[in-house]
Amino acid sequence: MTGLYFGGDYNPEQWPPEVWKHDVALMRRAGANLVTVGVFAWSSLEPEPGRYEFGWLDQVMDLLAEGGVQVDLATPTASPPPWFSLRHPEALPVNADGTRLTHGSRDTYCACAPAYREAAAGIARALGERYAGHPALAMWHVHNEYGTTCYCDHAAEAFRRWLRDRYGDLDRLNGAWTTAFWSQGYASWEEVRPPRATQYLVNPTHALDFRRFWSDELLAAYQEQQQILRAFTPDLPITTNFVFGAWVPVDHARWAAEVDLVAIDHYPGDPGIGAEQQTALGADLARSWAGGRSWLLMEQAAGSVNDGQRLHTKEPGRMTRHSLAHVARGSKGALFFQWRASRGGAEMWHSALVPHAGAETRRFREVAELGALLPRLAELEQSAVQADVAVLWDVESWWAMQATHLPSSELDYLAAVQAAHRQLWATGVGVDLPGPAADLSAYRLVVVPSLYLVSAEAAASIARYVEGGGHVLVTYFSGIVNDDAQVWLGGYPGAFADLLGIRVEEFHPAAEVELASGARGRIWSEDVQLAGAEVIDRYAGGVLDGSPAVTRNVYGEGVAWYVSTQLEDDAYRAVLEQAMRGAGIELPELPAGVELVRRRADGTTWSFLINHGDEEAVVPVDGVDLVSGAEVRGSVTLPAGGQAVVRSV
Amino acid sequence: MTGLYFGGDYNPEQWPPEVWKHDVALMRRAGANLVTVGVFAWSSLEPEPGRYEFGWLDQVMDLLAEGGVQVDLATPTASPPPWFSLRHPEALPVNADGTRLTHGSRDTYCACAPAYREAAAGIARALGERYAGHPALAMWHVHNEYGTTCYCDHAAEAFRRWLRDRYGDLDRLNGAWTTAFWSQGYASWEEVRPPRATQYLVNPTHALDFRRFWSDELLAAYQEQQQILRAFTPDLPITTNFVFGAWVPVDHARWAAEVDLVAIDHYPGDPGIGAEQQTALGADLARSWAGGRSWLLMEQAAGSVNDGQRLHTKEPGRMTRHSLAHVARGSKGALFFQWRASRGGAEMWHSALVPHAGAETRRFREVAELGALLPRLAELEQSAVQADVAVLWDVESWWAMQATHLPSSELDYLAAVQAAHRQLWATGVGVDLPGPAADLSAYRLVVVPSLYLVSAEAAASIARYVEGGGHVLVTYFSGIVNDDAQVWLGGYPGAFADLLGIRVEEFHPAAEVELASGARGRIWSEDVQLAGAEVIDRYAGGVLDGSPAVTRNVYGEGVAWYVSTQLEDDAYRAVLEQAMRGAGIELPELPAGVELVRRRADGTTWSFLINHGDEEAVVPVDGVDLVSGAEVRGSVTLPAGGQAVVRSV
Amino acid sequence: MTGLYFGGDYNPEQWPPEVWKHDVALMRRAGANLVTVGVFAWSSLEPEPGRYEFGWLDQVMDLLAEGGVQVDLATPTASPPPWFSLRHPEALPVNADGTRLTHGSRDTYCACAPAYREAAAGIARALGERYAGHPALAMWHVHNEYGTTCYCDHAAEAFRRWLRDRYGDLDRLNGAWTTAFWSQGYASWEEVRPPRATQYLVNPTHALDFRRFWSDELLAAYQEQQQILRAFTPDLPITTNFVFGAWVPVDHARWAAEVDLVAIDHYPGDPGIGAEQQTALGADLARSWAGGRSWLLMEQAAGSVNDGQRLHTKEPGRMTRHSLAHVARGSKGALFFQWRASRGGAEMWHSALVPHAGAETRRFREVAELGALLPRLAELEQSAVQADVAVLWDVESWWAMQATHLPSSELDYLAAVQAAHRQLWATGVGVDLPGPAADLSAYRLVVVPSLYLVSAEAAASIARYVEGGGHVLVTYFSGIVNDDAQVWLGGYPGAFADLLGIRVEEFHPAAEVELASGARGRIWSEDVQLAGAEVIDRYAGGVLDGSPAVTRNVYGEGVAWYVSTQLEDDAYRAVLEQAMRGAGIELPELPAGVELVRRRADGTTWSFLINHGDEEAVVPVDGVDLVSGAEVRGSVTLPAGGQAVVRSV
Repeated sequence: MTGLYFGGDYNPEQWPPEVWKHDVALMRRAGANLVTVGVFAWSSLEPEPGRYEFGWLDQVMDLLAEGGVQVDLATPTASPPPWFSLRHPEALPVNADGTRLTHGSRDTYCACAPAYREAAAGIARALGERYAGHPALAMWHVHNEYGTTCYCDHAAEAFRRWLRDRYGDLDRLNGAWTTAFWSQGYASWEEVRPPRATQYLVNPTHALDFRRFWSDELLAAYQEQQQILRAFTPDLPITTNFVFGAWVPVDHARWAAEVDLVAIDHYPGDPGIGAEQQTALGADLARSWAGGRSWLLMEQAAGSVNDGQRLHTKEPGRMTRHSLAHVARGSKGALFFQWRASRGGAEMWHSALVPHAGAETRRFREVAELGALLPRLAELEQSAVQADVAVLWDVESWWAMQATHLPSSELDYLAAVQAAHRQLWATGVGVDLPGPAADLSAYRLVVVPSLYLVSAEAAASIARYVEGGGHVLVTYFSGIVNDDAQVWLGGYPGAFADLLGIRVEEFHPAAEVELASGARGRIWSEDVQLAGAEVIDRYAGGVLDGSPAVTRNVYGEGVAWYVSTQLEDDAYRAVLEQAMRGAGIELPELPAGVELVRRRADGTTWSFLINHGDEEAVVPVDGVDLVSGAEVRGSVTLPAGGQAVVRSV
Repeated sequence: MTGLYFGGDYNPEQWPPEVWKHDVALMRRAGANLVTVGVFAWSSLEPEPGRYEFGWLDQVMDLLAEGGVQVDLATPTASPPPWFSLRHPEALPVNADGTRLTHGSRDTYCACAPAYREAAAGIARALGERYAGHPALAMWHVHNEYGTTCYCDHAAEAFRRWLRDRYGDLDRLNGAWTTAFWSQGYASWEEVRPPRATQYLVNPTHALDFRRFWSDELLAAYQEQQQILRAFTPDLPITTNFVFGAWVPVDHARWAAEVDLVAIDHYPGDPGIGAEQQTALGADLARSWAGGRSWLLMEQAAGSVNDGQRLHTKEPGRMTRHSLAHVARGSKGALFFQWRASRGGAEMWHSALVPHAGAETRRFREVAELGALLPRLAELEQSAVQADVAVLWDVESWWAMQATHLPSSELDYLAAVQAAHRQLWATGVGVDLPGPAADLSAYRLVVVPSLYLVSAEAAASIARYVEGGGHVLVTYFSGIVNDDAQVWLGGYPGAFADLLGIRVEEFHPAAEVELASGARGRIWSEDVQLAGAEVIDRYAGGVLDGSPAVTRNVYGEGVAWYVSTQLEDDAYRAVLEQAMRGAGIELPELPAGVELVRRRADGTTWSFLINHGDEEAVVPVDGVDLVSGAEVRGSVTLPAGGQAVVRSV
Repeated sequence: MTGLYFGGDYNPEQWPPEVWKHDVALMRRAGANLVTVGVFAWSSLEPEPGRYEFGWLDQVMDLLAEGGVQVDLATPTASPPPWFSLRHPEALPVNADGTRLTHGSRDTYCACAPAYREAAAGIARALGERYAGHPALAMWHVHNEYGTTCYCDHAAEAFRRWLRDRYGDLDRLNGAWTTAFWSQGYASWEEVRPPRATQYLVNPTHALDFRRFWSDELLAAYQEQQQILRAFTPDLPITTNFVFGAWVPVDHARWAAEVDLVAIDHYPGDPGIGAEQQTALGADLARSWAGGRSWLLMEQAAGSVNDGQRLHTKEPGRMTRHSLAHVARGSKGALFFQWRASRGGAEMWHSALVPHAGAETRRFREVAELGALLPRLAELEQSAVQADVAVLWDVESWWAMQATHLPSSELDYLAAVQAAHRQLWATGVGVDLPGPAADLSAYRLVVVPSLYLVSAEAAASIARYVEGGGHVLVTYFSGIVNDDAQVWLGGYPGAFADLLGIRVEEFHPAAEVELASGARGRIWSEDVQLAGAEVIDRYAGGVLDGSPAVTRNVYGEGVAWYVSTQLEDDAYRAVLEQAMRGAGIELPELPAGVELVRRRADGTTWSFLINHGDEEAVVPVDGVDLVSGAEVRGSVTLPAGGQAVVRSV
């Protein structure tokens, strides 16, 4: 399809047939052109084992086809029906403490259980068989938000299989896991188990490998369904929706290579500007995972989002701004969960395109306005986001930093990446988030926030990049451990000490520290000793008084900065701007609160401008505003909450 | 018995026989006339299965009879002895996560387990047989504080039986539970289980029905014993003690019809005035459950109460005031847990009428003074509390609001009811707490705090009440879902929108909001649109700036107020007073801190006046003070902490 | 060995052989003379059941012997290898809720499981056989930090055995446990179980006896190994390392009699002066357990300590001061965990003598300086610490106060002892911590902080001490229950009321109280009535306004003080100083922040002086400073962070 997708999850099985026609009419009114159907419909499609009820779905597919709405058809494997649990109790998931869960929610299966895999393949095959060639069918949506793990005996067996593949022999595993500590040496493979409930601290490499294993195991589960569906529809894209969250044991950067279209679900829960920052980070990640190709925002909230404490309801216009911010960064549209708000069930308070109050509401009117706006942006599809800066992203560092008993419980990989990204976001500079071993040559500056775990290869690749003229800015607690989560010895940060021209003997975690410049840091400080670097800022007061806090080292043709604490936002942004200027990056002039994303193709530039502030903002730019259709001369004036997409030649 | 009961739980099995005689002498000294014996005495009465030891109880009963103390004899079924667990491990309770509990505390049984039900019936029968006709026996006390639930397979089976009764066929259950969401459709009854540990959010209707089921199941367990005892003593009252607490899965309003005398245990834990407010609410609830008939305060604390953090010891006179506040509201006396403080065991720090320090203590002296005062109030028994206002109380709304993942985790049904009740308490107006479907015609104003769940019938009944001239004041998050916990569609509050003349499209949970009047609200706000109502107050500032916050709608002959946030106390009281005046209720003139309860019979009024303040208070009234015996002319002067019960003609 | 030990845990199994030689060379450079080897080496020593690999340990022992470093050889029984779990799943530990743990950490065994006991005896025997007579072998280190408990059926059986021994017949157990409460009467021994997960509050005496049982059971496990090793090396000392912590179910005071050398692990986690206070308390406890004989600091942290939230890295000099503070109080040296920081594993962030950064670090230089200093203090070994004051220490009171549902959840036995001890520490007066039944005649003042549980014998012994002229200062919530955790009736504090000349009817737990003197108390207050005592301070304000708060009673030839609240530090110190002066104790003149420990032998006094302040301090003293070797005339000047050990004649 050309043009942008607009629509969302559609769950007709929750409603009587008389609602379906009304829904399709409303979809047309809203300009919706793609809906995801069937995500959790297993018990409606196969109410008893082997007995399929496709009648209702046939009707729905036909209605949608007639209405001109395409379907992203889902396999419903994220929620086996109750009959499955009853017949296969051994396939129900088990917690680390041995609690076996049961149905009554969703995702109650162990993806390693043969019975589950067979049942999942069965329903996928039945759907492929039935709907291949249906005129509404445009895409396959396998499963939902892969990420459910388990500690059962099936998982144990699969884990051991994975470990054999990784390590070959037990001695290598014993070495990598440092099992000599606390007498954990394994004498046979069958002794190895998931990191189940134990007496005291868990082995960190054991825990890390269990996350790696699950990422791979779930990918294999995805691929099984992918192959089944591919056979039926060799030409249709197949994907699954990636979900964010610290609990997710899935390495999306690796998975991205295995899906036809990277798709993300994104529910930033912050009631303030944080939601915009998270939106930008999520979208930049998705684009980076997709290798710069287009991707898809598969789910977002139309109205309110739950922050874990309460719903926050998006103010008028905010849903539109969030949608544009995703599209600006490469999303092939804006989809939502879900079309019509549920009357009952666990997510009855999840907002929807059609709220409980119905279509004659402010919410639905904004939906329809967005549906009318998106087609005006269709020309963007061939352009690409410009990014001069990279922020390294590595899920393995994140997992490794989720270990218990790190030097500080406040160390937080995601927070460190977010802090770097939101400073850059505020400057309007484009940012990618490649992996540590990626080719970095296209970037002028590479930021490396708390990259705790780094392989020898990645460290060497980063050093080569700088040697050849690149600029990097590394922050605290980077380069500390290798792939096996074992410390790089000889002085921290072992993997980067030479590159940075420093050496650290001891850490000084701290709630707050002050620097000579007046800057403040949080969480962390280090006793940095110079080994070639120059000092940019120093600690002031406390046990580290006068010792280096921020350093800069010329390395080969390039420059390597080090920031040994979590600087507060203003100070962090100042250092990053200094580093960017040093790297030859021109910073756009941008009023505070205005978000800028630039896309380019063949000499044309599109500037997305979104005013998140409470006051009108004027931004210098020439061209045509695709939103209003108006010509823009010299500058565009954005009202509070307003947006423009200016094409300039 | 005529006159008021005075006494408490007596547990002679904890003490050697030489203490018993001393106890009876002390009871006479204190004026005690009723003690509850045997509540947790199963292992003393039946130390081994089938071997009864009634000798000690015979002695105790005889001693009490001789001393003129009546006995409320308990069946000890709330704590089976250790031998029971050993023989019937399958009858031990199981948590939602599958943990099977064992003895070592109390209440370690599943009330659905056949072995438990048989054993309970056995000991009840043995007691009935033994003590029917004993001169001390005045009442039966079945079990203790029913409320223990379980998730075991016995419970699962009973739950399924209950669901079959409720829904008849599975399709209705699937519809009511919205099982189409997340693929929870049940294909056979045996697939349905208690809401055991599961992966993620639980189905809210499933959880609600599990609470309904347990209320009914425990009631059946009560009734089994009731029938056994009734056969032995057809004329003696049989009851059980109701306990308060958010964990209690018992619908006391429904149970009240099945007991001969409503009895409550009440331990308000607040160290400040909150304890008085809770006392009044608990007592008003008990009277409302009893349909206005007399009821009994079965347990309260003589000395200190644990607030979960620490004991709070009642200041001199406070125990007396608490006792009078219960009696004022219809309690047929004042009983306590327990007579003599335990030396050991889990509740050794529970206060008692005879404390660890013995009878030569301030505490026991106050007990004896109270024992001397109560007989002077005997004439009150034929009078009734006057209540112009009703606050609706519905345990199903409470249970439904205990669902996870509501729009705000701060939504708290009990707190909303308490907030309404304590404003009314402060005005001295009498309050009943009937159910939503009750006949409301006797009230001038009906307050409906956060009645989340409301059936079509109840909503219609409330509307009819207003149509006929009644006044209601409904607060936020009322009328949202039906019996099946499914949203009333078309705009909130679906069940009441027409009555209130408003329509709400979206909620705006918020920590705090401000209103144009200067009032402040907490937790919640709503985007209220007028559909006939007039605006009384508006939101000021924030996203809802200027939109209606408090409204008033003329409906038929009556008036319907809506308050869309949790107003802080002063503002809430002002709105309630305005509504009361509008409803023609005359507000008593009452000094701050003085509690007033009025009872009436045949032209005579009794005014309970309790001064909770730190200063002397003067209250205008004429008559005779039953406490002091003095005549009251024009006004009565209450010292700080003082009380009067004035009979006026 | 004469002289002081210096060294730590050495875990060569974590490193390749080429590191071992380097380690021994570094040990020589640092002056290390004792290392603990093999603590967690079971899977390295016996990689498969019955197959021993002693080759690497032989090499290490030989290398150490050649290097002049003695070995404290450990039995590795605190961490059975994975093969053990696989073969003996029934020997894995079970939580109170029935969760069976598995390997993957350490301490995953039930010490009651026969299979574990056999395996432990086996590896101990093999080590004894192999290394008896080895020139490096100087001491045996059995196990590690005994304290792991279990609730499994093996534990249940052993518990019942222990209870039979304690109570003889069930009636006595039923009486002691007050099982008449809540129908817990046991009819047969097999009904008794560990205090496993149950419905509600646990029986406090049941819980207390379970802790007593585990202390004895673990001691038996220790003694089994002790006997095995003794047979091989009748002349070598055998010990185990005691660990601090509220979870530890071991009565170290009783265990001390069964080890040849009391050894403690000590990791004070407070970042401020609290670490020094905890150091002093731990060291005074160790000496008291050792009956005044020398003992050994077996583990401490060389660098950073984790406070549960983050690492705190010791400032330069602080490790040295901590080490001296232990030696001053009788430690036969200063040992550390561990020699070389681990690269991986659960404690990779535990600091070490040789940090990740290697030996060319500030940390290792301070280590070497400490190694050079200790030999200069060798002459101290024959002297003894002088203590005029005793603070009673009783682990059973601690355990009993860990019951749920005490009058206040803030009651904290350890905090009460710490509060007493740190006031005395600040005065520079020597303090022992004997048990309640100890001979107290050597002390001028005995402080009894919150001695909740006290036997009739101990109470009588304390009274006799006062009667004979001793002075005691008892604080709130002392003397409340007997050995069976049953209240001493007749008025609190039952066991001490006569001694103190007071009587308390009711407690008044409170966040904060004020006294007439201006002093403030926390947590607790009591309605103290005088029965012979005089008032020293009164409550001011609140319900206890004007009633006694601090009292003093002349009893026989002595004096008994009572402090009925937890006084804040300054006020507490003032009362203690008043009591000390009254008892004829001369208080040293000591600048604030300077710690003083005096040791004496035959007319010679050694004064340890440690300046914890930020400023230089001058202390009047004459003699020779063993640290600097300089003569001291009139006074010694200590720089901030400095120390001296002055020998005076």
